[in-house]
Amino acid sequence: MAYSTCMRRVSQTLRRRQHLCPSSFNTVRCASGAAFFPGEPAAPSVKTAIPGPESQRVLKELSEVYDTHNVNMVADYKKSVGNYIADPDGNVLLDVFAQIASIPVGYNNPRLLEASKSSDVQSAFINRPALASFPQHDWLPILKDGLLAAAPKGLDKIYTSMTGSDANEMAYKAAFMWKRQQQRGAGTDFTADEMTSSMENRGPGAPNMSILSFKKGFHGRLFGSLSTTRSKTIHKLDIPAFDWPAAPFPELKYPLEDNAKHNREEEDRCLRATEDLILNHRSPPAAVVVEPIQSEGGDNHATPYFFRGLRALTQKHGLLLIVDEVQTGVGASGRFWAHDHWDLPSPPDMVTFSKKAQAAGFFYADPALRPAQPYRQFNTWMGDPMRALLFSAIYKEIKTHDLVKSTAAVGDYVYAGLSRLQDKYPGQVLNLRGKNTGTMIAFDSPRRDELLKKAKKEGVNMGGSGVNAVRLRPMLVFQQHHADIFLKTMDRLLRE
Amino acid sequence: MAYSTCMRRVSQTLRRRQHLCPSSFNTVRCASGAAFFPGEPAAPSVKTAIPGPESQRVLKELSEVYDTHNVNMVADYKKSVGNYIADPDGNVLLDVFAQIASIPVGYNNPRLLEASKSSDVQSAFINRPALASFPQHDWLPILKDGLLAAAPKGLDKIYTSMTGSDANEMAYKAAFMWKRQQQRGAGTDFTADEMTSSMENRGPGAPNMSILSFKKGFHGRLFGSLSTTRSKTIHKLDIPAFDWPAAPFPELKYPLEDNAKHNREEEDRCLRATEDLILNHRSPPAAVVVEPIQSEGGDNHATPYFFRGLRALTQKHGLLLIVDEVQTGVGASGRFWAHDHWDLPSPPDMVTFSKKAQAAGFFYADPALRPAQPYRQFNTWMGDPMRALLFSAIYKEIKTHDLVKSTAAVGDYVYAGLSRLQDKYPGQVLNLRGKNTGTMIAFDSPRRDELLKKAKKEGVNMGGSGVNAVRLRPMLVFQQHHADIFLKTMDRLLRE
Repeated sequence: MAYSTCMRRVSQTLRRRQHLCPSSFNTVRCASGAAFFPGEPAAPSVKTAIPGPESQRVLKELSEVYDTHNVNMVADYKKSVGNYIADPDGNVLLDVFAQIASIPVGYNNPRLLEASKSSDVQSAFINRPALASFPQHDWLPILKDGLLAAAPKGLDKIYTSMTGSDANEMAYKAAFMWKRQQQRGAGTDFTADEMTSSMENRGPGAPNMSILSFKKGFHGRLFGSLSTTRSKTIHKLDIPAFDWPAAPFPELKYPLEDNAKHNREEEDRCLRATEDLILNHRSPPAAVVVEPIQSEGGDNHATPYFFRGLRALTQKHGLLLIVDEVQTGVGASGRFWAHDHWDLPSPPDMVTFSKKAQAAGFFYADPALRPAQPYRQFNTWMGDPMRALLFSAIYKEIKTHDLVKSTAAVGDYVYAGLSRLQDKYPGQVLNLRGKNTGTMIAFDSPRRDELLKKAKKEGVNMGGSGVNAVRLRPMLVFQQHHADIFLKTMDRLLRE
Repeated sequence: MAYSTCMRRVSQTLRRRQHLCPSSFNTVRCASGAAFFPGEPAAPSVKTAIPGPESQRVLKELSEVYDTHNVNMVADYKKSVGNYIADPDGNVLLDVFAQIASIPVGYNNPRLLEASKSSDVQSAFINRPALASFPQHDWLPILKDGLLAAAPKGLDKIYTSMTGSDANEMAYKAAFMWKRQQQRGAGTDFTADEMTSSMENRGPGAPNMSILSFKKGFHGRLFGSLSTTRSKTIHKLDIPAFDWPAAPFPELKYPLEDNAKHNREEEDRCLRATEDLILNHRSPPAAVVVEPIQSEGGDNHATPYFFRGLRALTQKHGLLLIVDEVQTGVGASGRFWAHDHWDLPSPPDMVTFSKKAQAAGFFYADPALRPAQPYRQFNTWMGDPMRALLFSAIYKEIKTHDLVKSTAAVGDYVYAGLSRLQDKYPGQVLNLRGKNTGTMIAFDSPRRDELLKKAKKEGVNMGGSGVNAVRLRPMLVFQQHHADIFLKTMDRLLRE
């Protein structure tokens, strides 16, 4: 049975049961016999203020030893189910933020729980290898079973890493080593001056080169990745950064269909500015890095035309194109990889991933992106086989239930619902974006922070991005009946 | 029963069994009933060349999609036991390198296997939180049960991270934010110029400040940590780096007892050079980062006098002292933290950890090292509760069996054995170092790479560091009977 059909029946059953016993947790099975989230609640249930008394106690004690400035809410993960996050005060919220877009197939997914009990996972947990030096004998089948099976079209090779930030930094290092090798010529050795100067952190060994990124882009918070991040001042203040170029990212007007001419001119302007920086910036770029949808920076979209333009520019000038799919990858855009929407004439040079993949790294095709000498693209762990095994289970779940397709469909449903709310409450829902990009949907709200707070009280956990965007980042198991709860809550809050 | 007593009996039993059936794997139990490494072999067993035919097949196929330039050997972790690493060709080697010093208590440790089956670990595996935003309700007890219980004296607070490199970079960021806040004055807001300039990667918002490190030091390979790494050219070539200062690290003469005067003068020279860079470098340091034993750079030691001097210098000039215990921490030095050897008058400001901890992060005491505003010291995962749970099991194993004490003892035994070999084979074993630093022992060898290769053929997996150092990095369960195998093998190889 298709996942959507199953979930519709699940939803109907839950509604019926809810009628009889609104507070009970339920187990619903598909005809196929597989239980989708045994115990997923039929609706949110908010019993206390959030944080409630128990969460407040937890936070007070925790703050003695751990920084709690960043806390959104305390969670009880063992009690969280499917699309619902529980807290220790007994509150259960519909979670459309999903650990900053990083939970793929629901809390306590039974198939992932099953995977956690396998001897392969247990061995990987307690026998963590220095993967690049001492790879396990079955590393290739593990990769082929999951990460490589899901690889973007045309990119059949992989480097694994630990987080999105370090995936990006490894991709940057690959770009720098590749570019310098191009400049030196194949087979040419390092010069004595390169060797000496690299140890002194100066050129030519530590070259004056850059990665070009875009304003409002986000690529992580390590020192190299943060130098390409331009999302918000609070992400960057007081941290030294490389003098690297940032090109303007298109600021599209909405609705897109009424602003086609302006938007095309805007994208052309940004492409021209990018080319200008490639040619003239004092720190020449080896690569361009871009998000398919700028997420932390405010859910800023550009059209496939813009990205095809970037691909053409990087090829014209001998640069690499790195697509940062840390937040957009693994199905949320309604395609497995968001750059699948672009219809590129040739694939990106590198695609980085993390978050919903639960593993991290980058895909590539050109063997020249592997340095010829050992211990250049290297660190102790170089990824984590346990997380690669988890990805295999996630990928199987996605394929079995066609979750990318269902995400595209439910995304259309949510977008249509928010369109109606935009018409109904003009001035409250602005610049709705994310048509045809699955559930990666956002809108601007003049009272964004207040809206997020009120939504939590109503049992919906949502996230913001940029200055005033509300961004939806539900899981791939977010379905129409979840969307109905979300849309009704929004309607109620906007009416107030 | 003490671990050492138990292991002695285990060792005797193994020798007896080996006599009867040399190739069999054995299960030996302590009187307490707990099995130490059921099935740990009595001796290495090498049946093929390494890599053997099966390993060669694995590597050939793997290299199509995964960079195999860095491979040392292919492993079969399910068949690895205790101090022994197995490969898919049926070879079993005594492992004194231990995944670049990162396996704490042996392959397939039964107590860690038990931990892997707990519902806490399983939940953490499949419900990975954005920890700083949505901490789990039991995060404090998890920390208190393990990481905080093991915290260095005087440092009662923690930031968790994913790897040693990112632990260091988080510590650097904490130092920069702290220092800039000191300069601004408490409660003072960011200026408009700081906010604008930070988004443009320039000062004052992205300040011209640095972290001072030492020549031959290693602190990771991300862009900030690599800027403080000065281990080898191959780690740094072609990667842009910050213009940060590197002070000379003492080059001690051995044996220490015959060179006390020279070494004291050398350490004074390095301290003076450090102070000169603190005062005069064009990019003023916010912190000094140092390894207790420079590991990747060649196992370079300094005396407690030098480190006490660094503590005094950083306090005199209002800088932070970051001790990078990624490789030295968690018992291998014969103390839980290597800086415990120094008898500092006040603790370091931050101590970073990873590797044997299997979790990563840094410890600190001063609440001012937490930025006052949210989302400054932040990223999506901010560590991994599953790895914190694993650390709790590791810590319990270390405490139960007094493994730090036994590591100190077996370290003395190995050092004495290598001293004898140094006397026996002058010119082959040079600059033996690591007296009283547990099993963190190294010596220089004029034919280091050849020696490592030959040792592998003889069934001992060893690592190198720096230009010509052989470094020992066994696990904390490395005992006298393992040391005997290692020393006998060395004796045989050096004789040839």
